[in-house]
Amino acid sequence: MLTVKKTSEAAEIILSSLSGTMPDEQAPVTLALGRTLAFDLTAKEFVPDFDRSTVDGYAVMASDTFGCGESTPAMLRLTGEVEMGIRPNTGISKGECVYVPTGGEIPQGADAMVMIEYAEDYGDEYRYIMKPSAPGAHIVYKGDDVKPGKTVLEAGHILRAQDIGVLAALGYEFVDVRRKPRAGIISTGDELVGVNDSLRGAQVRDINSYTLYAGMKAAGAEPVMYGICPDDYETLKQKVKQAALECDLLLISGGSSVGVKDTTQKIIEELSDSGVLLHGMAVKPGKPTIYGLIGGKPVFGLPGHPVSAFFIFNKFVRPLITAMLGAKEPIEKRIKATLAANLPSNQGREEYVNVRLVQEEKGLCAVPVYGKSGLISVLAEADGYIRIDRDCEGLSAGAEVDVLLL
Amino acid sequence: MLTVKKTSEAAEIILSSLSGTMPDEQAPVTLALGRTLAFDLTAKEFVPDFDRSTVDGYAVMASDTFGCGESTPAMLRLTGEVEMGIRPNTGISKGECVYVPTGGEIPQGADAMVMIEYAEDYGDEYRYIMKPSAPGAHIVYKGDDVKPGKTVLEAGHILRAQDIGVLAALGYEFVDVRRKPRAGIISTGDELVGVNDSLRGAQVRDINSYTLYAGMKAAGAEPVMYGICPDDYETLKQKVKQAALECDLLLISGGSSVGVKDTTQKIIEELSDSGVLLHGMAVKPGKPTIYGLIGGKPVFGLPGHPVSAFFIFNKFVRPLITAMLGAKEPIEKRIKATLAANLPSNQGREEYVNVRLVQEEKGLCAVPVYGKSGLISVLAEADGYIRIDRDCEGLSAGAEVDVLLL
Repeated sequence: MLTVKKTSEAAEIILSSLSGTMPDEQAPVTLALGRTLAFDLTAKEFVPDFDRSTVDGYAVMASDTFGCGESTPAMLRLTGEVEMGIRPNTGISKGECVYVPTGGEIPQGADAMVMIEYAEDYGDEYRYIMKPSAPGAHIVYKGDDVKPGKTVLEAGHILRAQDIGVLAALGYEFVDVRRKPRAGIISTGDELVGVNDSLRGAQVRDINSYTLYAGMKAAGAEPVMYGICPDDYETLKQKVKQAALECDLLLISGGSSVGVKDTTQKIIEELSDSGVLLHGMAVKPGKPTIYGLIGGKPVFGLPGHPVSAFFIFNKFVRPLITAMLGAKEPIEKRIKATLAANLPSNQGREEYVNVRLVQEEKGLCAVPVYGKSGLISVLAEADGYIRIDRDCEGLSAGAEVDVLLL
Repeated sequence: MLTVKKTSEAAEIILSSLSGTMPDEQAPVTLALGRTLAFDLTAKEFVPDFDRSTVDGYAVMASDTFGCGESTPAMLRLTGEVEMGIRPNTGISKGECVYVPTGGEIPQGADAMVMIEYAEDYGDEYRYIMKPSAPGAHIVYKGDDVKPGKTVLEAGHILRAQDIGVLAALGYEFVDVRRKPRAGIISTGDELVGVNDSLRGAQVRDINSYTLYAGMKAAGAEPVMYGICPDDYETLKQKVKQAALECDLLLISGGSSVGVKDTTQKIIEELSDSGVLLHGMAVKPGKPTIYGLIGGKPVFGLPGHPVSAFFIFNKFVRPLITAMLGAKEPIEKRIKATLAANLPSNQGREEYVNVRLVQEEKGLCAVPVYGKSGLISVLAEADGYIRIDRDCEGLSAGAEVDVLLL
């Protein structure tokens, strides 16, 4: 008999049930934003690939400029000009200089740059240098930024916009990323109708298919909607079986009434190579959550209530997707705010309260979002969650709280 | 003559140059994640559409249960059972009850629910109620969550996963959102080669096209790459002209050398119905940034240096995209950290320093990311920026700093 688990135990059970990360695949660099690197990304080129000036000015031998000054300029013969993107065809010798633009290659023989504002041009063949330059001044040497073999981004890194530039800089047109897990989504309930059906009688629209679909996209998975399934054992079993074959994980929401609650559990238990690992969590909302494996694939039985289902999605499913992708845990988006109302103590279980953030003169305020029914108004209004510990006696208005942003 | 502007002045000039927001278009709800609502979203239905039970139990007349208790149960005749999604065909009268599952409709005549655990079933036609129920107990009335005409999400709201569920709940299969601005991206420089070219001589790969492309996607725009343009006035002018016709805004990066720097400005000035509004900002990095309009469309001349270009993108281009979408400013992703090294004073201009975040025992540390060349290693390593005020004398190691996450 499975007992109700604390959230930390539940998270442990879920994550340790994974048999491995998703296989890798190649993605074009322009489509790789938000994808997870499958392997360490190592440089295969020098960056830059040549000694490069960081200023507009003159390439010189530093020793030619030692001791010079405004009243005693160093007189260096200008022997040429380097063009952007073209390798200089001559070097410089003692007493000479060559014009090099920012980003241009330093010619052979030169070991320093003099910025153009410290070189006078009187229209003759010389440039008059008025400030000494130290060896290496204003030069980036070949490989200074990156040398071949260097690990530039680590496996598990989630690619940001700037990383896409890094990939391009290193000549990667394609990149090895983890394949997105296909996430099957099934909503159960005789009372459910689709978004484009007209409501008749005691029906409600299917909400979970949509929050979970969008949530899966945001989490880096590829959602697949299997639609609404009536509370019928055989129909649901066939649908679950099919979805488990086609997907990498499965979310079945609904079945909040007593009889139906057991259906999802029974189906997970009865399909071959499957089993329930978790039934019930000591958390509000989301207590009746079920977790198990079908053919080694994670399956969640989520509450039917949209607010509860979405909370469990954020708290347990998102981290699972992160783990399936082998991705590093992202930095949590937390923000400090002042609680705007008393929150009564919970009853011995961890509780999460939806809050709306309001910018007031004294700072950011967290206003609890209730709603007797809380079908959708809570979803629409909440900016994040506050966590209330299971042993907490309640929180008072004015307390500083951590809001986990949605 | 345009003078170098403070960042606050620059932001003001850029935002006030906009003539309006993007037009609206219809998006399917499953593809609307991250899009910006064009208009207030109002409910066109009641949610729920009927009086609904929030528990499994018995619908009763509350007055029938007054005064009952474990030793004096109220004996109510069970006259039926409500099925999910189906309108009850009979009501209840005094002395009667009807079974209703969670989410089922309350039958006519009933005004309270009794939870199943407070009703004994001895196998006869009665249920024995052991706890009084107050009128309205465990019932969500029609429209309790939302009534037709209520504004559920405001214009300018950026749709999150839970909002997609809200749309579905309200029967919106399509939603009016702001069209994504088409953002043309041009990289200029004779030294640039593409990601799949082989490097020859003093060439570097085009990085900005890729960071800006991905950055535009992340910002909610639709990027269009126009590729690499050599530092040639006529070629660039034609390309800019074409891109300005096809796009809603334009980013031209590069042209960091003196001669070329003026090219972008000259082109913006010379094209018909256009002009430069901003040339230079008192900020490091990104001083040489140009901003203007071509045919009323925003055009940025960004620095060629990838770190500078990406900084200006985040600091000025992203907020412009937000404004073009008529979107609400998102809550900034800021995090407190302890500075790990001294930062010298800047020279009378606002400065932004890239930092890497490291979780240490004492807390989160912000480690400045330098790099003499900083072509790509800074991009790869930075997690965010620290701002140093123009009048700041520098920051000491150990100082608490605000890190603006990338």
